[in-house]
Amino acid sequence: MVVRTAARRFSSVAFLTSERYPNLRRGPYGCLSEAHVVTFERILSPERVLTNEDDVAPYNIDWIKTVCGQSKIVLRPKSTEELSEVMKVCSENRLAVCPQGGNTGLVGGSVPVFDEVVVSTSLMNRINFVDGISGTASCQAGVVLDKLEAALEPEGLMVPYDLGARGSCQVGGNISTCAGGLRLLRYGSMQANTLGIEAVLADGSILNMMNSLKKDNTGYHLRQLFIGSEGTLGIVTQAVLQCPIRPRSINLALLSLKKFRDVLSTFTLAKQTLSETLSSVEMMDSVCMTSVGNKLGLKCPLDNDSDSFFMVVETHGSREDHDVEKMSCFVQEAMDKGLVVDGITSNEPSRMTNLWQLRERITESLCKDQYVFKYDITLPLGKFYEAVEVLKQRLEPFGSEVQVSGFGHVGDGNLHLNVTSPTYSDALQNAIEPFVFEWTSSVGGSISAEHGMGFKKAKFLKYGKSPEAIRLMRSIKSSMDPLGILNPYKVLPPA
Amino acid sequence: MVVRTAARRFSSVAFLTSERYPNLRRGPYGCLSEAHVVTFERILSPERVLTNEDDVAPYNIDWIKTVCGQSKIVLRPKSTEELSEVMKVCSENRLAVCPQGGNTGLVGGSVPVFDEVVVSTSLMNRINFVDGISGTASCQAGVVLDKLEAALEPEGLMVPYDLGARGSCQVGGNISTCAGGLRLLRYGSMQANTLGIEAVLADGSILNMMNSLKKDNTGYHLRQLFIGSEGTLGIVTQAVLQCPIRPRSINLALLSLKKFRDVLSTFTLAKQTLSETLSSVEMMDSVCMTSVGNKLGLKCPLDNDSDSFFMVVETHGSREDHDVEKMSCFVQEAMDKGLVVDGITSNEPSRMTNLWQLRERITESLCKDQYVFKYDITLPLGKFYEAVEVLKQRLEPFGSEVQVSGFGHVGDGNLHLNVTSPTYSDALQNAIEPFVFEWTSSVGGSISAEHGMGFKKAKFLKYGKSPEAIRLMRSIKSSMDPLGILNPYKVLPPA
Repeated sequence: MVVRTAARRFSSVAFLTSERYPNLRRGPYGCLSEAHVVTFERILSPERVLTNEDDVAPYNIDWIKTVCGQSKIVLRPKSTEELSEVMKVCSENRLAVCPQGGNTGLVGGSVPVFDEVVVSTSLMNRINFVDGISGTASCQAGVVLDKLEAALEPEGLMVPYDLGARGSCQVGGNISTCAGGLRLLRYGSMQANTLGIEAVLADGSILNMMNSLKKDNTGYHLRQLFIGSEGTLGIVTQAVLQCPIRPRSINLALLSLKKFRDVLSTFTLAKQTLSETLSSVEMMDSVCMTSVGNKLGLKCPLDNDSDSFFMVVETHGSREDHDVEKMSCFVQEAMDKGLVVDGITSNEPSRMTNLWQLRERITESLCKDQYVFKYDITLPLGKFYEAVEVLKQRLEPFGSEVQVSGFGHVGDGNLHLNVTSPTYSDALQNAIEPFVFEWTSSVGGSISAEHGMGFKKAKFLKYGKSPEAIRLMRSIKSSMDPLGILNPYKVLPPA
Repeated sequence: MVVRTAARRFSSVAFLTSERYPNLRRGPYGCLSEAHVVTFERILSPERVLTNEDDVAPYNIDWIKTVCGQSKIVLRPKSTEELSEVMKVCSENRLAVCPQGGNTGLVGGSVPVFDEVVVSTSLMNRINFVDGISGTASCQAGVVLDKLEAALEPEGLMVPYDLGARGSCQVGGNISTCAGGLRLLRYGSMQANTLGIEAVLADGSILNMMNSLKKDNTGYHLRQLFIGSEGTLGIVTQAVLQCPIRPRSINLALLSLKKFRDVLSTFTLAKQTLSETLSSVEMMDSVCMTSVGNKLGLKCPLDNDSDSFFMVVETHGSREDHDVEKMSCFVQEAMDKGLVVDGITSNEPSRMTNLWQLRERITESLCKDQYVFKYDITLPLGKFYEAVEVLKQRLEPFGSEVQVSGFGHVGDGNLHLNVTSPTYSDALQNAIEPFVFEWTSSVGGSISAEHGMGFKKAKFLKYGKSPEAIRLMRSIKSSMDPLGILNPYKVLPPA
């Protein structure tokens, strides 16, 4: 009760996850005792064991304020060995554990549901090495993405992915959630770029697979098990990433278009003419552009009609002369073909940063002063924007205060579909779910492109995985975490 | 005995694996009976069940003639459903199974060790679809790599990897062994490019994960378990691959260099100046170049001194003018810096094919009329060629008939280290193994870069994986294949 009050006070929200989902039952886990706290304080030192309710509160709620747990303790290990000791205690006492990185997740995967022990990786923030010759970097799980980026820059390298949450999200969380982001179409997925992993398993044993080689076929590729399993099979403690060479030349175009069909044709043209230099192809609709303007004061330099679409097309290359020529040929051809209404190109860093803000701060703007139902789906390109239209029509009865909008990584077929409403409402949620998952599944899409299943989507797993696949998931989970203490209520629905 | 004769007759080799490794024990598996044969004939039709010893013999031996099994039966399903029925029978009768694709493996993973039932995927050779817009292709496991390449070409796509064995190797085998190949540094690994998989598990159940989307974070990334597990966790039956756009312009350089140090500096220069167009960086030493000349009559257009090194540097791009300029700037700069002694560049297709042969047919030439001990290791670049030098010195007592040579994917740190000898010899093998694995492991390398562990390297797994990792591998194996019938004696050493 006390914790509930603190979490509510901190978050200014009026709910707990366990209240909003009344059918959910707490698992058969141990309850935190004073003796446990003393043991944790002995392992970590008292200042890295948070039990004061105000200190714990921020760890109980996600940043878009859609879920709120009731944990009474946050542990902040600095090393793998400390975390290993912590997990041994949790395992022996069957205490459920919620691993938490930067807490930037969007599906409730990183906060507790009931009273799980929160293990924060924030103090595991050491960069082990950056190797400019081989193009690799190694760090602890708690390193914040933009800190790693800053360490790579002097070596002429870059992190192989980039996310809007770069100032808060952590490498361990990025791996655990198989983060996608803005440049996946060029630099590849976490599966492609994570060369090595160290993880602590449910029983506290340490799995060291800190390979830093590009090829290693010695036995099962176990590290892949931890990528995207959202902390349910082990807690990632360190990693080695493959890091590409930093581009010498970056070019950006912001384009406005009349129809979504033109967005697709422009994407195809970009693949053909920008080809190996293409690093990002993003789109947003008029509602999103209006939102960043109204809520955050970011001005779009192109006209924004109510039926406009916008694209950000970016290239990374090694020769400015070649790259500028490729980009201007592309924009010219898109104009000549009547695909693009208007466009701006730039290779001036601060100008490009400003243009990127229009795309990157959409999530922030949509959350501001209202509730947002967020969906992150992959669709065959022909169905990409139909998702927005179908949902718009379905939600018409809710009136004009409920807005449906879409933006995302069109280059990867990944749509971020959003419904905003002045407040949360069960009726609205029920009108959207499971409809949006059924529809996505029926057109051959994925109900979670890059955000993962977390807590909020776990019960919809059947729309993404066959019964045999879910059975295999359960079998792996129970063989690796027989007590089910690692991030319970997440990813897998109750059996 | 009869089978033994046939395999020997077919292969002109004078050994069986079970004789060469006398300490190896057959597992507690059932023996093939006439009743089993009748059941398989009912499932598959009689003509797709091979039991005639001459028909079976080629499936018992690997192409470099280093291992030879004694299977009495080869099953050739055409569909996933047929394979599922076959596996149910094998599971019920605890018959051990050896899945076989194109049988181009180099570590004895694709042929039986004792009398395992061979399941050949060769007739599962349907291409399901090629989608030019999304850049994906779907096919059955038995599709030969160059057949898939041919089907992709009209759609402007290419397979995201390429191997010298492209005329025989199959997509299912490529996935099961996590094939690397010639262009991994540009297009990424099998983990990066395999979007979807269908597999039949040990008990015959079918796991359908035929996703064709670039992003899908709905639950554990189970497909990754089958990539590189060499048929020990399930048999891959179908897959969806991400296929990049075919380059409009290809440029190739063959370079000769004096010192290995110059090879590394030239690689660094290539990364800087060819950057996003770079598609391959290969090296071979003088012994390899001499071998393709003497054994296959392939003439090297550059001088080959006994201490020469050669590099193949290739670019894939979209604009001929830009790409030719980049390549000529690179070669010029390498010459100006004194890194390269001589060089040839070309973008004429038949000329490039001929130049590639010098690199691609090295394995074939080294196997010709002699025995070859093959090692496939990844090394930190600073140690790359030291492996050859160290082994040369160690094997000096064996005289000049024993030759050590090195070639490989320097761009990935992947060395193919070879020892050739007129015949197989235990003494020579014992001089090399486990020394080469110990040395590789001691300098932070991987004892199997892309060939896998198969049968021949399974007992050396401890040089590549920690005890905890091996324990987890065993736990996954026993939960997915409790009877141990899938490709026994491979990957994991006897417990």
